[in-house]
Amino acid sequence: MRIEPRVLKGFRDYLPEQTIERQRMIHLLERVFTSFGFVPIDTPAIEYAEILLGKGSDETDKQLYRFLDNGERDVALRFDLTVPLARYVATHIEQLGTPFKRFHIAPVWRAEKPQRGRYREFIQCDFDTIGTTSVYADAEIVAVINSALNALDVKHQIRINNRLLLNGFLESLGSEAKPASVLRTIDKLEKQGRDSVERELAEESQLKTQEIQDLFEFLALSSESTTTDLLGKLEQFVSKRDNETARKGFAQLASLVSSLDAFGVPNEAFRIDLSIARGLDYYTGTVFETQCLELPAIGSICSGGRYDNLASLYTSRNLPGVGASVGLDRVIASMEELGRLSKKQTMTEVLVTVFDESSQLKSIQLADQLRRTGLVVEVYPEATKIANQLKYANKKGIDLVLFVGEREIAANAYGIKSMLSGEQVEAVRAEDLASTIRKLVKNV
Amino acid sequence: MRIEPRVLKGFRDYLPEQTIERQRMIHLLERVFTSFGFVPIDTPAIEYAEILLGKGSDETDKQLYRFLDNGERDVALRFDLTVPLARYVATHIEQLGTPFKRFHIAPVWRAEKPQRGRYREFIQCDFDTIGTTSVYADAEIVAVINSALNALDVKHQIRINNRLLLNGFLESLGSEAKPASVLRTIDKLEKQGRDSVERELAEESQLKTQEIQDLFEFLALSSESTTTDLLGKLEQFVSKRDNETARKGFAQLASLVSSLDAFGVPNEAFRIDLSIARGLDYYTGTVFETQCLELPAIGSICSGGRYDNLASLYTSRNLPGVGASVGLDRVIASMEELGRLSKKQTMTEVLVTVFDESSQLKSIQLADQLRRTGLVVEVYPEATKIANQLKYANKKGIDLVLFVGEREIAANAYGIKSMLSGEQVEAVRAEDLASTIRKLVKNV
Repeated sequence: MRIEPRVLKGFRDYLPEQTIERQRMIHLLERVFTSFGFVPIDTPAIEYAEILLGKGSDETDKQLYRFLDNGERDVALRFDLTVPLARYVATHIEQLGTPFKRFHIAPVWRAEKPQRGRYREFIQCDFDTIGTTSVYADAEIVAVINSALNALDVKHQIRINNRLLLNGFLESLGSEAKPASVLRTIDKLEKQGRDSVERELAEESQLKTQEIQDLFEFLALSSESTTTDLLGKLEQFVSKRDNETARKGFAQLASLVSSLDAFGVPNEAFRIDLSIARGLDYYTGTVFETQCLELPAIGSICSGGRYDNLASLYTSRNLPGVGASVGLDRVIASMEELGRLSKKQTMTEVLVTVFDESSQLKSIQLADQLRRTGLVVEVYPEATKIANQLKYANKKGIDLVLFVGEREIAANAYGIKSMLSGEQVEAVRAEDLASTIRKLVKNV
Repeated sequence: MRIEPRVLKGFRDYLPEQTIERQRMIHLLERVFTSFGFVPIDTPAIEYAEILLGKGSDETDKQLYRFLDNGERDVALRFDLTVPLARYVATHIEQLGTPFKRFHIAPVWRAEKPQRGRYREFIQCDFDTIGTTSVYADAEIVAVINSALNALDVKHQIRINNRLLLNGFLESLGSEAKPASVLRTIDKLEKQGRDSVERELAEESQLKTQEIQDLFEFLALSSESTTTDLLGKLEQFVSKRDNETARKGFAQLASLVSSLDAFGVPNEAFRIDLSIARGLDYYTGTVFETQCLELPAIGSICSGGRYDNLASLYTSRNLPGVGASVGLDRVIASMEELGRLSKKQTMTEVLVTVFDESSQLKSIQLADQLRRTGLVVEVYPEATKIANQLKYANKKGIDLVLFVGEREIAANAYGIKSMLSGEQVEAVRAEDLASTIRKLVKNV
């Protein structure tokens, strides 16, 4: 009886061309994170359920892959890399010391409703600095985001806000409205119009008409044309409120933004956006989102922020931190949509053909010699018809093919053909093969 | 209420030094696999249980992490990368074409009893060539194993056998004994002595006294001092039997071994060992095991073999193949035991210190400039006492520290100190910093 070779809904097989591209991007991210002094860590895919439950939201609880293991332990697959990080630092921080800068690139699982661009298994690429409240750690995260997206060749703009500004503003009004809920209401502006939004703010957040106007005035500052203008007006706005929280938020935001030049982040790579909130409750200061400028509709491709206390559930030690997460699946989806995803199915630079059984060992030997010079070399495993071997090269997208026939072996000089250009180089002496191939590879 | 930050038994947190070392090894393996034309793929961690059940052994079935997902689907975590590969090629082989050479480096999960060096979550590093019966594909796997272990700096010996030899020998006796069970009995030779083993062979495998003697004679060939001698005697032994299966096994083994020189595998890196069987039933010809020469007791660090039909459960298409799997956890355990595991906790090449808040942006700026030259540069996030910053460098094992004080900034010339050697270089001009640091890094 045959079994249907199906894959679970929301899960994916990666074909070589997809895996090559994803691995390439992951290696670039690793290099960028490393260049700033972040170090890699890893944690188990499976954790005790109590470690993961109630840490994200009701939604993430419902989306847990949770089960009893063979020892009747209540366990679950991690749904993000932040909760495992919290548990990890609670255990290891004495040994690690602070500041602790780590990155973690690994799959997570969520039993969400699968939809376009949303999967039940996906990679997260997190980086965080733990154990410092310095605003320069926040700024460095912006610099890392900028370098990471440059490395991935994504045109981007990082949007920066500080939650203390809106928190302080609402505080100054004596309002008990939740900043996140206020922002959620304001998010509906485009769809429902100003009247409807004002009504909702009045009803649900108990804001008075003048307060709502002030709120709109505050948010409108985001549209100032330069960061300097924005900070100037924001300072005025904040000084009028006489609220400590808002002042602190302003000071943090101003320091962060004014340090970005030293961090090498160009002006066009970021802007202040006072409407950015991030859904997660644990952010307490700086928050980031990042827009893909060529495809803004895809949503934020790198988000994060500052939190006051990462691991309070597991340790009495106070561990503030700041970090962000590159949404690799979204980046790949946007590259795909923009037609900028490489479709390379192989890394092979040259295919060594096999003419017949008597010459097969010679083909194998030449392949070995070329490989030792650092080239990526495949030798066809069978002495089939050359036409088949060329078809194979074509199908896999291998450009260069080396011919090792009886005549070539006798002369110790070989032919190389480019499948793409049709160009042929004849009678290359064995000792010149590597350098000739290198030149041809570079031409592609 | 605080939650104890515990990790499940058999699972591991990876500290930075462990992750750096593991990632380094994985990158080396990726490079070796790629250099032979293998391409990476990936498959989901979770599969329908029916895909995974009954594919390994009763043991792997019992060790499955199996559960009902939120949609009441019977699912399980993969316990190896071979069964997912079979499902994968059954779905995608038309698109992929043959020969298909893939590698897959990913975690698998088995609810085994945890013990020294055995974990419930571990990495497998598989590589296989699918769709060819060519013995040169088998030989290439040996070449890949050799290159992979050289890259990992593991002194090794690959042991090669062909199952058809013993199968054919038992066939020629008219015995219905299972080769694997015969070999299991013979494995007890050292512990139980020859008498006991002979009795067991006679009873359980119904072998006659002369046949048992012939069997011992056959296996004793493994100890011939050279491969040439061994093949010579083996050929005599086989020709006496007049059995097609054994002849085929001999021809395959002889071709494989005689091609290894062309593949660049030196004589000392392999030997024929007629007692190698590999537990798994699906191997049908060549089988490999690999010994770590400095620590043979750790068991095979890279095993594999040839199978006739990979995906018969999922497709009518016949897909022969050959492959092996590097036991990365075992390699790491042996390196650890041999004291050869790097304890590097960071990749940072230089730490830029921060003297005070007024000079902090200058430190950040210099760090950015150095990073742009390709150096791995960390800048301390706070303007704390320099002693603290040096302590940090020491704790993390960062060798070079750059001093950016008022005087240095005024002179635009900076001091660099090696924490390891104590050596100090004074007054390095900003434009010479990168090259000076590069020289000092190389000295370590």
